[in-house]
Amino acid sequence: MAQQGVTPQSEDFSRWYTDVVQKADLADYSPVRGCMIIKPYGYELWEAVKAGLDRRFKETGHKNAYFPLFIPESFLKKEAEHVEGFSPELAVVTIGGGKPLEEPLVVRPTSETIIGWAFQKWIQSYRDLPLLINQWANVVRWELRTRLFLRTMEFLWQEGHTAHATHEDALAETMRMLGVYTDFAVNDAAIPVIPGRKSNQERFAGAVASYSIEAMMRDGKALQAGTSHDLGQNFAKAFEIQFTDENNDLQYCWTTSWGVSTRMVGAIVMAHGDDQGLRLPPKLAPIQVVIVPIFREESQRASVMAAAARIKAMLHEAGLRVHLDDRDNFSPGYKFNDWEMRGVPLRLEIGPKDVANNTVALARRDVPGKEGKRFVSQDGLVGTVRDLLDDIQASLLRQATEFRDSHLHEVTSNYQDFIEVVRGGEWALAWFCESAACEERVKEDAQAVSRNFPLEQPHPGEQGKCIICGQPAREMAYFAKAY
Amino acid sequence: MAQQGVTPQSEDFSRWYTDVVQKADLADYSPVRGCMIIKPYGYELWEAVKAGLDRRFKETGHKNAYFPLFIPESFLKKEAEHVEGFSPELAVVTIGGGKPLEEPLVVRPTSETIIGWAFQKWIQSYRDLPLLINQWANVVRWELRTRLFLRTMEFLWQEGHTAHATHEDALAETMRMLGVYTDFAVNDAAIPVIPGRKSNQERFAGAVASYSIEAMMRDGKALQAGTSHDLGQNFAKAFEIQFTDENNDLQYCWTTSWGVSTRMVGAIVMAHGDDQGLRLPPKLAPIQVVIVPIFREESQRASVMAAAARIKAMLHEAGLRVHLDDRDNFSPGYKFNDWEMRGVPLRLEIGPKDVANNTVALARRDVPGKEGKRFVSQDGLVGTVRDLLDDIQASLLRQATEFRDSHLHEVTSNYQDFIEVVRGGEWALAWFCESAACEERVKEDAQAVSRNFPLEQPHPGEQGKCIICGQPAREMAYFAKAY
Repeated sequence: MAQQGVTPQSEDFSRWYTDVVQKADLADYSPVRGCMIIKPYGYELWEAVKAGLDRRFKETGHKNAYFPLFIPESFLKKEAEHVEGFSPELAVVTIGGGKPLEEPLVVRPTSETIIGWAFQKWIQSYRDLPLLINQWANVVRWELRTRLFLRTMEFLWQEGHTAHATHEDALAETMRMLGVYTDFAVNDAAIPVIPGRKSNQERFAGAVASYSIEAMMRDGKALQAGTSHDLGQNFAKAFEIQFTDENNDLQYCWTTSWGVSTRMVGAIVMAHGDDQGLRLPPKLAPIQVVIVPIFREESQRASVMAAAARIKAMLHEAGLRVHLDDRDNFSPGYKFNDWEMRGVPLRLEIGPKDVANNTVALARRDVPGKEGKRFVSQDGLVGTVRDLLDDIQASLLRQATEFRDSHLHEVTSNYQDFIEVVRGGEWALAWFCESAACEERVKEDAQAVSRNFPLEQPHPGEQGKCIICGQPAREMAYFAKAY
Repeated sequence: MAQQGVTPQSEDFSRWYTDVVQKADLADYSPVRGCMIIKPYGYELWEAVKAGLDRRFKETGHKNAYFPLFIPESFLKKEAEHVEGFSPELAVVTIGGGKPLEEPLVVRPTSETIIGWAFQKWIQSYRDLPLLINQWANVVRWELRTRLFLRTMEFLWQEGHTAHATHEDALAETMRMLGVYTDFAVNDAAIPVIPGRKSNQERFAGAVASYSIEAMMRDGKALQAGTSHDLGQNFAKAFEIQFTDENNDLQYCWTTSWGVSTRMVGAIVMAHGDDQGLRLPPKLAPIQVVIVPIFREESQRASVMAAAARIKAMLHEAGLRVHLDDRDNFSPGYKFNDWEMRGVPLRLEIGPKDVANNTVALARRDVPGKEGKRFVSQDGLVGTVRDLLDDIQASLLRQATEFRDSHLHEVTSNYQDFIEVVRGGEWALAWFCESAACEERVKEDAQAVSRNFPLEQPHPGEQGKCIICGQPAREMAYFAKAY
């Protein structure tokens, strides 16, 4: 049974999502159409995502910097594909300080252009390369149909921008960051994403090649959870990003860009959530353990609350993120539901009997009902809790992986079978010639496009025939409906 | 002697500032007039400021959240003083997705209005109070005369917004956050700021009372480094932020807001820097210790570099922020200058003799020349370095405090003396009646305004006569030229 006010997933997944995001206090609509308010609990989750990514960026030698929100309109026009891709989505400032501007300013939809301008100034010689920069920022893309976290007019993200001396180096960086994203998604977010190359049609506007990590949501739809782009010399030529090499010859740089946004929060919600609400992976959960004290009589309050406070201090001391729900005006049952909705991985209950017996009850969010509940000694509790959190982290990844694998189908028979799989909300892995015509046909027949050519091909070195047109194809791609 | 390309402070402090900010790689101008690019080294310094503040906000019960960049123009108009104060400074989006907007969107200059809208939705009962929210964000104010970090069209900041059941609680919060800012400035940034109340003329647009921390720069000018506002019920009434109290009566909330911005980076530069460049307080320095290996002959390289790497690992292991400058293409002398410019608190030199003797040389940034240099054993080096960093932190605060105190003058004699002090670039502490006419007269006569009425009054409980008009005055205020 779903929680009060939450549409069951089986009834309407999309409404379930919106219900849970709001009931779990992650985010809310704003008075500005298309913009969202990220509430404290949602922002804490985003801070955990940021911390996990930022640590990995710094470990791989990247430095954070900050570039202007506003970009001169003329900058966007310097890269032909780029301006074509982003023009329909721009928010434009035309008035500043009460006066019309001579040149309108675009609110950044992404920062390749303005960072390209800076790189041109910063890079002189091969000694300045590679230049490895990341920016945490807000960006704006004018979206007509928006959904909390998944597609909003303004969103928060990080955008990495790097410059290299050779195409080989730039490509290695592109793949390294795709690997960083995969590592984060799998090991921190417990989402078994599939890394791969986007088709030419689905490339970033201005890139030579785009790569993505694709995640499967619990309605079977795909969600692109991060992208990494090999920009070739496109932006280097548009912005004159040049360096003198070891022979003193002037060369154009090779650049990359890569990004993950607040969409990742939506991915976490839809990859793990159930009809009771969120299920957060312990590594990212703002609260890993919630303590709910239970007593019927006022005379029991003091001893139960004292034990609860002592346990909270002990777990906090051990570096765990723990919260004691000492609210007077709610029943334990209400609190159980509330913390289940918010996806706290582990609930710790303590009552008068537990105080007497030196025990507590631990209830796992990932295993419902009695099966997920056990009584344990307060001795060695830190170790018990740590082990359980590790187990929950692994269990969420395992459940998501099993779910994913049961909805992936390699289709080599014929186009009809292929389209039926995709129409049915499953993922089809099939030979694909990568032509725009074939991509378009699938879009018309199944409201779906290719997700990516997975790096891990099932038949490496082999060739096949495109499932759509029958022409030779060198790689297999996933097709699925997507967010 | 000043470093190459740096104007001495005594010659032109303002040019010194711009030279150092650029030479130390903190920031750069951008192609958009009034916007700046925060370079990696400057951004790391800002990250340290953020971390120091964010920790304190969380310790005092605040939660981070995120609100939209765009604010409907009509929102700003709901609070009369607020719109009057900010109207001339707005950047306005009039085109979105290629079409003119029905209602223009203002790029937030501050977020009282949109957060007020959210608070109205979030708060129902006294149980929801206090609501303690902070936001890390970019804001835009259309400035004509801009300077890196000090005054830029777009800047980064945090803005706290809280709602309370009583005016007493709101005022306590206003003062608590002023205290948090003071604590951060004094103990982390080593800047002996003066907390106090702004005059009515210098209040935030829409506040009942504004408080600030005022810092003295090394040219004697004042810089407002943080503000905390008691907003009374002004925004609560404009946005209908109401709650039902314990008697079930509907009441308006009392709100506060408070902010510190990337200006703080400018304050750190100008409170400590000298003709050699930055001098960063160890608690905030991105690099606390820089290791410069020194050898003349190629045969000495291996042993020196091995020792340098070992020491780096040891210091890093101990949690210190350490950098090994292993660049081949620069001489040790060049490196010394470079790291002095960047304000690294401690330089560690190691050469062949040191390797043989198990020593290193340590040179303090805050004490120039031989006096600041000593040779120490590699045994117990972590402790030696820690002690020295503590000492440098204390020394920078002491130097800044001595400098400040030698430029503060209590003036009780007459207006002429008072104006001469302020005109001469010093701070005058004087009885002030707080009238607009008096404030205006000082502005005309000395291009200065009141900074604040310090919380710590020299003659508590006493009254005096306004140094400007001679009318009764209940408090003394600082007057100074300011950034």
